[in-house]
Amino acid sequence: MKKVFSIGFWMLFATCLTAQQNDSITIRKIYSEVLTNGKCYQTLDYLCNKIGQRLSASNNAAKAVSYTAQQMYNFGFDTVYLQPIVVPHWIRGEKEIGNIVKGKNEIKVHVCALGNSVGTRLEGVQAPVIEVQNFKQLAELGTEKIKGKIVFFNRPMDPTYISTGRAYGEAGNQRGRGPLEAAKYGAVGVVVRSLTLALDTNPHTGYTHYVDTIPWIPGCAISTVDANLLSDMLKEDTSGSVEFYFRQTCERLMDDLSYNVIGELRGSEKKEEVLVVGGHLDSWDLGTGAHDDGAGVTQSMEAVRAMKALKLKPKRTIRCVLFMNEENGVKGGNAFAKEVKTKNEKVLVAIESDGGGFTPRGFNVDDPNASIKFQKWIPLLKPYGIETIKEGHSGTDIEPLKENGTITIGYVVDSQRYFDYHHTAIDTFDKVNKRELELGAASMASLLWLISEYGIK
Amino acid sequence: MKKVFSIGFWMLFATCLTAQQNDSITIRKIYSEVLTNGKCYQTLDYLCNKIGQRLSASNNAAKAVSYTAQQMYNFGFDTVYLQPIVVPHWIRGEKEIGNIVKGKNEIKVHVCALGNSVGTRLEGVQAPVIEVQNFKQLAELGTEKIKGKIVFFNRPMDPTYISTGRAYGEAGNQRGRGPLEAAKYGAVGVVVRSLTLALDTNPHTGYTHYVDTIPWIPGCAISTVDANLLSDMLKEDTSGSVEFYFRQTCERLMDDLSYNVIGELRGSEKKEEVLVVGGHLDSWDLGTGAHDDGAGVTQSMEAVRAMKALKLKPKRTIRCVLFMNEENGVKGGNAFAKEVKTKNEKVLVAIESDGGGFTPRGFNVDDPNASIKFQKWIPLLKPYGIETIKEGHSGTDIEPLKENGTITIGYVVDSQRYFDYHHTAIDTFDKVNKRELELGAASMASLLWLISEYGIK
Repeated sequence: MKKVFSIGFWMLFATCLTAQQNDSITIRKIYSEVLTNGKCYQTLDYLCNKIGQRLSASNNAAKAVSYTAQQMYNFGFDTVYLQPIVVPHWIRGEKEIGNIVKGKNEIKVHVCALGNSVGTRLEGVQAPVIEVQNFKQLAELGTEKIKGKIVFFNRPMDPTYISTGRAYGEAGNQRGRGPLEAAKYGAVGVVVRSLTLALDTNPHTGYTHYVDTIPWIPGCAISTVDANLLSDMLKEDTSGSVEFYFRQTCERLMDDLSYNVIGELRGSEKKEEVLVVGGHLDSWDLGTGAHDDGAGVTQSMEAVRAMKALKLKPKRTIRCVLFMNEENGVKGGNAFAKEVKTKNEKVLVAIESDGGGFTPRGFNVDDPNASIKFQKWIPLLKPYGIETIKEGHSGTDIEPLKENGTITIGYVVDSQRYFDYHHTAIDTFDKVNKRELELGAASMASLLWLISEYGIK
Repeated sequence: MKKVFSIGFWMLFATCLTAQQNDSITIRKIYSEVLTNGKCYQTLDYLCNKIGQRLSASNNAAKAVSYTAQQMYNFGFDTVYLQPIVVPHWIRGEKEIGNIVKGKNEIKVHVCALGNSVGTRLEGVQAPVIEVQNFKQLAELGTEKIKGKIVFFNRPMDPTYISTGRAYGEAGNQRGRGPLEAAKYGAVGVVVRSLTLALDTNPHTGYTHYVDTIPWIPGCAISTVDANLLSDMLKEDTSGSVEFYFRQTCERLMDDLSYNVIGELRGSEKKEEVLVVGGHLDSWDLGTGAHDDGAGVTQSMEAVRAMKALKLKPKRTIRCVLFMNEENGVKGGNAFAKEVKTKNEKVLVAIESDGGGFTPRGFNVDDPNASIKFQKWIPLLKPYGIETIKEGHSGTDIEPLKENGTITIGYVVDSQRYFDYHHTAIDTFDKVNKRELELGAASMASLLWLISEYGIK
């Protein structure tokens, strides 16, 4: 008996060893393929430099749908299709104007309309300014002090956090709900300090939220250099003579038809079990959405292309989804999850890349048990810089899938530079490093491969 | 007895816990100080944009010596002094010219002289080209095939390595010894493919070595785009009509006096035990040496400044050394080690930052036992992205200290972008991210603090 046990044990041990060696070899092949023959960098070049910004319902967004679908087809995906969705159609209008006004002096500053904001009147809006750090302070000041004024939200992102995403998260409600909250007390407009740790003259746009029961007042973002100037001038302004003027002609048009772009590599053994990988195809309109999220889109396509090129046969189906409308509505993410539910599809996991095309650091798994389970693969991925798999936020487009029982996973990158470019005119192709982008694609492909081989049990 | 043991055990346990908590708090303070009040970014700005390139024996190198010494004094270092050294004085001369010549057609390409190279004749040198990948191939071709020709070393860096430093190391001998090796077989000049993974038009300079017994022939670097073109043209050239022409007026002048810049924070308990932290103050002359190695210099200064600003009292002496002449002679590193030996100083460790001002990944320790010992600090440093402490290469300037028994440590960064800029005209201040630079300074300060507290035993 003892001998039998021993033989059995050693056979099992040998099998495990071989499996791990094979995985290690496959992962090495994936990285080599992407780093040598990768197509994500040139796909991103086209997306940014030949198409450009891809705000939902824009002509460019439509071009991006056609182009990426065609690319999936060119890469030899087993199937490519479009999922129709209705998206908001917001336009920025004319270049915004912002001035700090003190008596007869006007100082021109760098502003941009917040995404989804209403415009000002055509002649713009001018009013005294009141600076606040947060909603609590706003409520304490109340209607008496706020009414008729422009509220200036000036809480900086905390530079002492190592994760810039955390600093963004904690400062983000000023932009997301600033106009809504200020309007409760009769403000006539809102200026928000740009959500970045960089001190420069780039204003950062981004979505702001309205509700039907509260007046919709215009909101703009101001660059950090100009925010500091405005704050300094307000501190010195004992007579209350500093006012702010801004003009923006942005508006929301009729909703329009658009698409999620979807392509698949069919599973060889359990094709009904689906692993999703994706990013969002839409972008804000100031830059060309290189890091946010052209990177995620092209990495997701590359992850599948590389598997196909290597003639790998994943057991489960890999579905690449390029979500439309993450930035101002999440219509793509919601519609995709709804269809999965309607069709009763079995989507085991979904991985999203939406933190920019920077060097890989790990994965966030939005499920404590799965997070622990996936950690056993760290030794296989550590040689490539994937050092952390932990519980954490996954991604905006894939979160709706959680309701269906999908384990959602966020691809985590080195975050230091992201908010220098995020939602600005300088989020352009030249800010992306080819190898950093490629390493991300290979990292996602490798994790997909492992989950495809071993499932999630 | 059992009870006594238990109390003793718990007291020890509590002491250890408190020590670790204190270390954790101190490290948090260091990162917050550097990320909030750090001066390395503005010091680097001055070094690059007000001074510029800092090739050994240049006027700018002298300015950099004065400026950094003054800054150390301004930062409140306990002592600041200069260590005189004699350095080579090589100058690039006029802008280099490189042409691919085919019959009457000349295609202008991007070249630069290798550092330390001799010039061509004033009219330049033109000859048929022979492409090789390595010295073995060169030897096989031999004098018969090489004599009178220009040898084109075109072995690319291997893109499949995750560490770009490793790829650089394996391709590097073409530049470091290409002219020397080719001259053995009668070549009249050498063109070396630029040591980078980027496909662009920037030629990368760097040191090439001569010996007295072999003729000194001129060597230049060619951009990767142009190297591919030249290689393609040679492949199609059945008649042997493709030649290469280059002209460079670089030369080596008389050696000159320069300095290592040294500043100290004196230890509070064991001031005779010294921990060195440093980078190299000299740079190549094409760009402004922002990543190589203005970053390392300013991070080293910042590590000490932050401790001083926080009123930390390290038990052992922290000595910041800005080495002169790493790029073309290592005279500073050698002289420093020699003086340590002469004075019989006890330099426990030396940390060098010379991989660019990118996001921290870890430390390489050039001593297997110390490497294992230092790994116990990973839990304290992991929240800041320091995930790996392992045995490995430390740094060129500090390696000579090993002979004295010093443990040498290389600060390791994310390496993906480094060779895009390395030794080129685009190694400039705008390529450095403020937070990535600062995180490095804080990481080095934290490791210095721990070693200062606990020593190396």
